Amino acid sequence: MNQTLPNNNTPQKFCSPISSVFLDRLVKILASSQILLNKAQLEAYAWDNTGVRAMPQCVVLAENSEQVAGVLRLCNETGVPIVPRGAGTGNVGGALASFGGVVLSTQRMNKIVEIASDDRLVVVEPGVVNGDLQSALNSYGLFWPPDPSSSKSCTIGGNIAMCSAGPGAVRYGVTRDWVLGLQAVLADGTIINTGGRTSKGVVGYDMTRLLIGSEGTLAVVTQATLKLAPKPTARRLSRVVFSSVAQATKAVAKLMTTGLPLSAIEFLDGASLNLLRQESDLTIPTAGNAMLLLEVAGGDDEIDNYANEVGKCIETFSPLEQTPPVAHEEAQEVWAARYALSPILKKLAPKRINEDVVVPVSQLSLLIEGLEEIALDVNIPIVNFGHAGNGNIHVNLLVDPNDSVIMEKVKPALARIFKLVLKLDGSLSGEHGVGTQKRDYIEWEVGRESILLQRSIKTVFDPKGIMNPGKIFPNV
Amino acid sequence: MNQTLPNNNTPQKFCSPISSVFLDRLVKILASSQILLNKAQLEAYAWDNTGVRAMPQCVVLAENSEQVAGVLRLCNETGVPIVPRGAGTGNVGGALASFGGVVLSTQRMNKIVEIASDDRLVVVEPGVVNGDLQSALNSYGLFWPPDPSSSKSCTIGGNIAMCSAGPGAVRYGVTRDWVLGLQAVLADGTIINTGGRTSKGVVGYDMTRLLIGSEGTLAVVTQATLKLAPKPTARRLSRVVFSSVAQATKAVAKLMTTGLPLSAIEFLDGASLNLLRQESDLTIPTAGNAMLLLEVAGGDDEIDNYANEVGKCIETFSPLEQTPPVAHEEAQEVWAARYALSPILKKLAPKRINEDVVVPVSQLSLLIEGLEEIALDVNIPIVNFGHAGNGNIHVNLLVDPNDSVIMEKVKPALARIFKLVLKLDGSLSGEHGVGTQKRDYIEWEVGRESILLQRSIKTVFDPKGIMNPGKIFPNV
Repeated sequence: MNQTLPNNNTPQKFCSPISSVFLDRLVKILASSQILLNKAQLEAYAWDNTGVRAMPQCVVLAENSEQVAGVLRLCNETGVPIVPRGAGTGNVGGALASFGGVVLSTQRMNKIVEIASDDRLVVVEPGVVNGDLQSALNSYGLFWPPDPSSSKSCTIGGNIAMCSAGPGAVRYGVTRDWVLGLQAVLADGTIINTGGRTSKGVVGYDMTRLLIGSEGTLAVVTQATLKLAPKPTARRLSRVVFSSVAQATKAVAKLMTTGLPLSAIEFLDGASLNLLRQESDLTIPTAGNAMLLLEVAGGDDEIDNYANEVGKCIETFSPLEQTPPVAHEEAQEVWAARYALSPILKKLAPKRINEDVVVPVSQLSLLIEGLEEIALDVNIPIVNFGHAGNGNIHVNLLVDPNDSVIMEKVKPALARIFKLVLKLDGSLSGEHGVGTQKRDYIEWEVGRESILLQRSIKTVFDPKGIMNPGKIFPNV
Repeated sequence: MNQTLPNNNTPQKFCSPISSVFLDRLVKILASSQILLNKAQLEAYAWDNTGVRAMPQCVVLAENSEQVAGVLRLCNETGVPIVPRGAGTGNVGGALASFGGVVLSTQRMNKIVEIASDDRLVVVEPGVVNGDLQSALNSYGLFWPPDPSSSKSCTIGGNIAMCSAGPGAVRYGVTRDWVLGLQAVLADGTIINTGGRTSKGVVGYDMTRLLIGSEGTLAVVTQATLKLAPKPTARRLSRVVFSSVAQATKAVAKLMTTGLPLSAIEFLDGASLNLLRQESDLTIPTAGNAMLLLEVAGGDDEIDNYANEVGKCIETFSPLEQTPPVAHEEAQEVWAARYALSPILKKLAPKRINEDVVVPVSQLSLLIEGLEEIALDVNIPIVNFGHAGNGNIHVNLLVDPNDSVIMEKVKPALARIFKLVLKLDGSLSGEHGVGTQKRDYIEWEVGRESILLQRSIKTVFDPKGIMNPGKIFPNV
């Protein structure tokens, strides 16, 4: 294994100002209307959902793969960092120009190129918004399963870069399970194609999945062929409250072995329920310390049968309360409870820290117990909810950035949380990725040898280290 | 992108005899009972299912990852090729010592380390036989979906090396979809771990899927954590005959969009049906030119409903014959027809050439038409059957290797077949892999740039090119 790491693999200093020579060459690749340089325009590309700001020196609005190749070639020759960006809805800083340079926005590459319903696939440009794709597929009775909570605004390219997912992952898996092939541009402007249009294929290495989740550090995806699934015609949702997380966890583990078509198994912890008691008009049993939202999806003929089987299964774990399964509008009210949490948290702690850990389902209750212990020790309120069927929990630390005493405790608290997750055979990120926010911790999970190996792979794709520098990898 | 390829990436000459110094060091790593050297013993490791013979100079029966690491370190230091081998059931020469050297058999690493049913996962050593794992899981109501036709003898390690699949892929996907994490040893003896025990995880590059399907050219897998699925309790199978492949294809495309839980959509072409008319006691309508075997799998309550919905869907494509759905024993008789084909073909043409191409479902009838045209042109009988739901067809050229006139036509015929497949947006292999059999053709599919990139990735893992040399990559 190549043990030597090029120094420029993760640059240690901010990019020097972009030269007029660079701009002279850039205007030969793009129309001037595709190049943003003034501060007011750049500001809109300086943020993502982490609340961290990083100003790019230039933003380019590429319109096709040839333009992307041209810009990459120019950046590669001049050593200017390039940061691919979708809608900027990420949670780990992946789309931020942490070392300055050029932000390459895919917002103008937003065409749905082809819908081939007989082959259950669609070909899209990376800037297509997830929700817009779903709307376009409705009339075909098909959908693309990855469903991040930002689906109304996040792009397919961003979903691919971060291997995004949402509640539906419990049944359908994540982005890597729903991409058949990619067109991508390497740092030197080489355009490659991976995978294809078939649901099977084993010719050469799995370059498609090597690019998915690589956070723009290997290549820029310029077109994607996505695998589609038949859209269930009916859904039923029920709300279940348990006295303990342990009981809820046992119920989840059991449900996961039944084969029932559960399309969501969402979890809310005791702290979440307290918030809902205070901030929503939901009535929750006072003894309730854990809530599950259970959704089944299927055909009209079977759906009620499925919902009843879920109910029967849940009864054996003696819940405090189980609402009868509901459809459509009523279901939206139940979901509203789950989705009310983020705004409530934002109101209570505008600068909350939102982590995204995952553990085996059997370890969920130990995870929540451990998190509650840490919250007490460091005196920081921690609210936990997420996708229980995957053991994927969003850990919210409600901190006030102006309280220096608290802020001093955050870093050690995060370290304790991550060590707890790894002790429980978990992973530091289920769906948000690493970016700049977790790069200092991933060695604990994947080990030094694997980081060296992965950085050597990056060097094959990007010898000069211009592709989204400073993301994923710590300086080991 | 690194354009330079190390000469030793795919060695051009056979390995020189193994030295006594090498053996002296080998016996310090393994017991003498784990080292096979005499011709009679080696002969058993000189074959796979291609019918091609390649004698190794030594076979080692490793028993744990430390021994694997020791052997790899020794081979890496001395430049001796090493070929990982499961049960040798592969169809492309992947497990053959094409350049001599050491065959590393995993047959003694056959422990099921852990079954964690609450987390729907199992931890296994690579030598575990696929069928033995399924038996061990029966009592948990769980199974591991990859189901190659060799499942009674093939190993999990072999399934991972080749990204194997079978009829069930139409519903469950392939091996890459059912592996959570791996322990693997690199050429220099470094032991790495990829993925983990969770069904979600996006920390660093997807090393798990980079190794799956890499045919032993990057690392030796020494342990695998496999994702399990709930095992359906009931199945129904029906046999449908159509007058044309076009009608059958339309029916398949429609079925794939219904969301019905089809666990197999198998296809037999006109030539296959003629063979069955002659060689089996099956009665098939004389006008029949295509047969589908349609299996649904689900819960006892819904299964008949599913089977009826499939039947109703099929009726709209006016089949010549549709048998009522059957379960269990009767189903075995229907499957017997499908599985009788290989032995029949072996009898007719012991050295038949068995290709494994895949096209989008919508292109299936054009593929079969094109194959029939080629068969007529070159006067070689071609029999086609396979996994229609994935567009994955096994193309059997019935040739007599002693007929030099025919054999001269084989290579150009294969070239025409592969060009047809690629013209139809297909792939040269759906589940068999590349090995030595397809390496001269993959550039047509993946392109020179991608091959250079993939070989540079191999060089990161295996700088001296000792890992299964001569597999996958042509000398571009």
